[in-house]
Amino acid sequence: MYGFATLEVVSRGMDVIEYVPDRNHYAYTFGGVAPVMRVQPGTVLRLWSDDAFGGALRSVDDLSSAKVDLRFVNPQTGPFHVEGAEPGDTLALHLVDLEPARDWGASAAIPFFGGMTSTDRTVSLQEALPDTTWIYELDRERRTVAFAARHSDHRIELPLEPMLGTVGVAPAGGEVRSSLVPERFGGNMDTPEMRAGSTAFLGVNVEGAMFSVGDGHYRQGEGEACGTAVEGAMTTTLIVELIKGGAPGWPRIETDTHLMTVGSSRPMEDSWRIGNAELVQWVSDLCGLHVLDAYQLLSQITLAPIANVVDANYSVVVKASKALLPPVEVYGGMHADLRARARALGSV
Amino acid sequence: MYGFATLEVVSRGMDVIEYVPDRNHYAYTFGGVAPVMRVQPGTVLRLWSDDAFGGALRSVDDLSSAKVDLRFVNPQTGPFHVEGAEPGDTLALHLVDLEPARDWGASAAIPFFGGMTSTDRTVSLQEALPDTTWIYELDRERRTVAFAARHSDHRIELPLEPMLGTVGVAPAGGEVRSSLVPERFGGNMDTPEMRAGSTAFLGVNVEGAMFSVGDGHYRQGEGEACGTAVEGAMTTTLIVELIKGGAPGWPRIETDTHLMTVGSSRPMEDSWRIGNAELVQWVSDLCGLHVLDAYQLLSQITLAPIANVVDANYSVVVKASKALLPPVEVYGGMHADLRARARALGSV
Amino acid sequence: MYGFATLEVVSRGMDVIEYVPDRNHYAYTFGGVAPVMRVQPGTVLRLWSDDAFGGALRSVDDLSSAKVDLRFVNPQTGPFHVEGAEPGDTLALHLVDLEPARDWGASAAIPFFGGMTSTDRTVSLQEALPDTTWIYELDRERRTVAFAARHSDHRIELPLEPMLGTVGVAPAGGEVRSSLVPERFGGNMDTPEMRAGSTAFLGVNVEGAMFSVGDGHYRQGEGEACGTAVEGAMTTTLIVELIKGGAPGWPRIETDTHLMTVGSSRPMEDSWRIGNAELVQWVSDLCGLHVLDAYQLLSQITLAPIANVVDANYSVVVKASKALLPPVEVYGGMHADLRARARALGSV
Amino acid sequence: MYGFATLEVVSRGMDVIEYVPDRNHYAYTFGGVAPVMRVQPGTVLRLWSDDAFGGALRSVDDLSSAKVDLRFVNPQTGPFHVEGAEPGDTLALHLVDLEPARDWGASAAIPFFGGMTSTDRTVSLQEALPDTTWIYELDRERRTVAFAARHSDHRIELPLEPMLGTVGVAPAGGEVRSSLVPERFGGNMDTPEMRAGSTAFLGVNVEGAMFSVGDGHYRQGEGEACGTAVEGAMTTTLIVELIKGGAPGWPRIETDTHLMTVGSSRPMEDSWRIGNAELVQWVSDLCGLHVLDAYQLLSQITLAPIANVVDANYSVVVKASKALLPPVEVYGGMHADLRARARALGSV
Repeated sequence: MYGFATLEVVSRGMDVIEYVPDRNHYAYTFGGVAPVMRVQPGTVLRLWSDDAFGGALRSVDDLSSAKVDLRFVNPQTGPFHVEGAEPGDTLALHLVDLEPARDWGASAAIPFFGGMTSTDRTVSLQEALPDTTWIYELDRERRTVAFAARHSDHRIELPLEPMLGTVGVAPAGGEVRSSLVPERFGGNMDTPEMRAGSTAFLGVNVEGAMFSVGDGHYRQGEGEACGTAVEGAMTTTLIVELIKGGAPGWPRIETDTHLMTVGSSRPMEDSWRIGNAELVQWVSDLCGLHVLDAYQLLSQITLAPIANVVDANYSVVVKASKALLPPVEVYGGMHADLRARARALGSV
Repeated sequence: MYGFATLEVVSRGMDVIEYVPDRNHYAYTFGGVAPVMRVQPGTVLRLWSDDAFGGALRSVDDLSSAKVDLRFVNPQTGPFHVEGAEPGDTLALHLVDLEPARDWGASAAIPFFGGMTSTDRTVSLQEALPDTTWIYELDRERRTVAFAARHSDHRIELPLEPMLGTVGVAPAGGEVRSSLVPERFGGNMDTPEMRAGSTAFLGVNVEGAMFSVGDGHYRQGEGEACGTAVEGAMTTTLIVELIKGGAPGWPRIETDTHLMTVGSSRPMEDSWRIGNAELVQWVSDLCGLHVLDAYQLLSQITLAPIANVVDANYSVVVKASKALLPPVEVYGGMHADLRARARALGSV
Repeated sequence: MYGFATLEVVSRGMDVIEYVPDRNHYAYTFGGVAPVMRVQPGTVLRLWSDDAFGGALRSVDDLSSAKVDLRFVNPQTGPFHVEGAEPGDTLALHLVDLEPARDWGASAAIPFFGGMTSTDRTVSLQEALPDTTWIYELDRERRTVAFAARHSDHRIELPLEPMLGTVGVAPAGGEVRSSLVPERFGGNMDTPEMRAGSTAFLGVNVEGAMFSVGDGHYRQGEGEACGTAVEGAMTTTLIVELIKGGAPGWPRIETDTHLMTVGSSRPMEDSWRIGNAELVQWVSDLCGLHVLDAYQLLSQITLAPIANVVDANYSVVVKASKALLPPVEVYGGMHADLRARARALGSV
Repeated sequence: MYGFATLEVVSRGMDVIEYVPDRNHYAYTFGGVAPVMRVQPGTVLRLWSDDAFGGALRSVDDLSSAKVDLRFVNPQTGPFHVEGAEPGDTLALHLVDLEPARDWGASAAIPFFGGMTSTDRTVSLQEALPDTTWIYELDRERRTVAFAARHSDHRIELPLEPMLGTVGVAPAGGEVRSSLVPERFGGNMDTPEMRAGSTAFLGVNVEGAMFSVGDGHYRQGEGEACGTAVEGAMTTTLIVELIKGGAPGWPRIETDTHLMTVGSSRPMEDSWRIGNAELVQWVSDLCGLHVLDAYQLLSQITLAPIANVVDANYSVVVKASKALLPPVEVYGGMHADLRARARALGSV
């Protein structure tokens, strides 16, 4: 019925392990799922992931109320057992490349889901918004996705800016969480910062870390206001690394220019408080700054883009430009090293 | 006692009215204060405003607990009565230039005020953080302010990025609000977007609009985490304009590249909801897009930087790149016209 | 047009001053209004107050969308200037008697107002709930109000339980706030605890305290879910007293059996935090308990009924049974004294 | 080392199955644990449960920072597999009797846990409150527990009012949640309403329902302000019943006098919104009232006691007096039937 593989495919290139999951190997939780593969630190993976809807919305006539079960969205590719990873360690995932795996993405105003509607938490007695599906056609040459209005007559091309909505590991304390949830373990953070060139650092909670990825977005606004981005199947090339010890309390992201933390909770000020406290502590540790001085310095230089206001928890990114910090070496220069390795991968 | 003028000074240049308030003409509220001046639409004002502390923190030995009364911070320069402004109209304030009026700025960890401490709302029984003042020396040539750590030994120069924390009009319904509060009427929004080149649009609630400005920041991180930016006296050059009718429900900002709305409430998700709903409606109106289509389009293109998480209300900016919207004319091209007039002001 | 007095009426009985405001003396703010009368501490007042809608909803055919302007609801009777009251003092208002002043009350599902709908803060793009008015007939003999369903066929008599939605003083810092707002100064707390037999203690912020009352409810559930109670004109008999100094940070209520504090903020956990911190400090002071011991003891004995989740701020009451506290004397036994005076008033 | 059984004990009386878990059969999650027993609907269970700390705090010198790991608190007795229970069914648990199983209870100000401190969500940079343990001696004759101040010199006897903090089933969607969490599946709701005489109704999510109980409180204030009640080992006698279908979305409680719903989320207004919407729908269904009429009626009669403001989610109870509702039969009169059966158990 679907155009993609119905058989699980794993192929090993020169240095890259490719993996396309069979549909019955989709994971819908962080934790609680047996690993699909064991990988060594240093491995390069090329992973196919289905879109948030499991490919169920393929035309504007496919309505989410008929085709999507919110208990089973964001199918994860994984989990992967990382050899040697133990609780307290730090998993590094460097995103080398994200390439749309279909020629269209989908978005929807799912009834009682999203930021401008009452939900199952912010409950009201009002009627749902009209269930509507939008299909975005991809133009690989122009690197655009095309918005086509549904209730009016407009069409606008938007730059393709691929990212992953979900990157996470198994939670602590034996918990198992839906792939809709962002939390300490990462998960559905839905931040545009999770794009090619970024390195995510996640605390390991269980042996093998058990990470997975999914929920590719061809692009997304900050806040992910309607609850869904331009959702699309994605081919993600990433490098897996492991740092012994040093597990951060909450997800961190490093790019060539910025250090970031991601807090996910409710209400949204708590998400920000988490992200900010994590960054204050991180910068304090890195720079040898007293925590109050780090608090003060960061107060004047941080950016604080909202990631999403629509998931089970809301996510906020707090980020600092490395150029405005004293020179620091983060995780022994891991990010720079991974960037170099990514470049070396060349046209793989 | 202070180095600045103790006499109110008003001087009228070619096209620019300069105004330096006497200390006893500082306003600490939006609404409830007699106008200091009546101005015609089209007037260019050059306004001196004191810093958030009323100049009380001048060295690291000046502690906020001894010198700052939170009921009387953010002294406003104004209010100005705009001739012809009536409830339902739209006041446009175009920021032409913001220039630090002192050679230093101050910031402080005010006890029980700020984002990483319990407050008088998010109350706890814990002790306050150590009351600390930081002084930032300005280097006008290098256009920097220098952070000097207080509890450790670091010094870092940061780019000067002047902005206004407070821009507002008198509230509706006869209310009078502290200049610490951001709300529908603008006020203490504390967003870095309120900088030279921006045009703010505010709904008029009372005859004359009664706008004021203050709370200059030599720079500020998003979130204004510690509760205070690099607070500094500021000389603000702005152009006042009036649009009959069209009063927006919440503040709007236009720059050469973006349309923005600002929501201010609690919890922070409500601030975002307000800003997002305002932008959806605005874009829907401007572009003739069905509101659901505007919701969808903006979901994929908006930025959502947090402004502050520390004031009486939290403020969130929601912004859209004009380049990703259908071509639109906003308020009859008012912003472009004001930009042109600002350029014509040249070296005034 | 209305059945009530269109002329202001003040009559002085033996010991009771009766006051029925003229419609053009209704106040819609706390602060910012000239006093209608100056009263000595010890004065007994009998005050007529209009209902929250200003009497505009008189039949089920009177819809709030047509007849109610949310900027002008909760008309206040007052303000009263209390002789000798200065900032830092404590105003005590003892509610002797609340008697419905009409034979019917009204309630409404005001569009975008209330707890089970999106609002101007918790904004959504959904349609409003159907604007509906309910009229409750009063039976003075049976002491009931009768609920009559509008969209179905039910009728139920409910016990009459009169209370005041708003009791407040002028705010601090020169602020003026809508009578829709509950805050430090009291105001629209909408708690059923504000009934005959209760003594409210409010911190005085301005000379004369400038208190007012209004928003009578013939009964109200906790939370005031739909945004409006059984709203009714009320005749309130109260005794005014003044305690020099001792101004509480937030409103307190004492009854024969309980000590209470009221916190009003957003999100609702902050309202609770405020109320709880105030009660911990109060009990710590009264009983000579270390603040951590007061925290512990109150953790095991407090009740925490929600007052409203629908106003500009949400209000939560935190209350402790006196029977579970060490014997204490509160404000020099003021409440017991006022109760005795109330009894002495007899049938006035 | 501990005074209680180190061997699991199951004994079957006339009609009552007694179960005392061995320590290594404590469960710390809802879901993810194999059943300790399979029971038929109609079974009477007498269950021993350890206290929230696993018995680790036995004197005031046992500090939580040394002895308590927050990932492993609220040890559950269970889970029990209920024969015939399928997803979509309704599990009824009638609490017949709760009897303290030790002669003392314990409470603690756990660092960064509780309502009047910053936490791992509402993060601040402040120091923790002093870690303090309070021991409450039980007087079985007087039916009291004695508060003894730690930082001052007071002792007060409080009525014994036993309740269960946690009652829950396995979550939906394959999730596994910590026993610290209250949610749709019940769990750590921490409401004093969960006491002898109450019937809890929980939606079944997995085959067998897999319910467990724990976290006995000898008494608790609403809000559970300090984060811990008078925590004590408990012997709970309960009757298990099963209703085919009719699974409620969130937990319901019925007593002889009230119908209640429990919402658990963040911010706390969302907990209330959930509870209120559930009660509106329930009463609408039971009484044949249009949902808007149910909304209106309940607005005037509900009580809304806060349960806790300290757990991973905050819980609010919304309750309506049956006496103020039209006569209704709830779940076929299940509660009345269970009450009768409980009485018939007599002195078992």
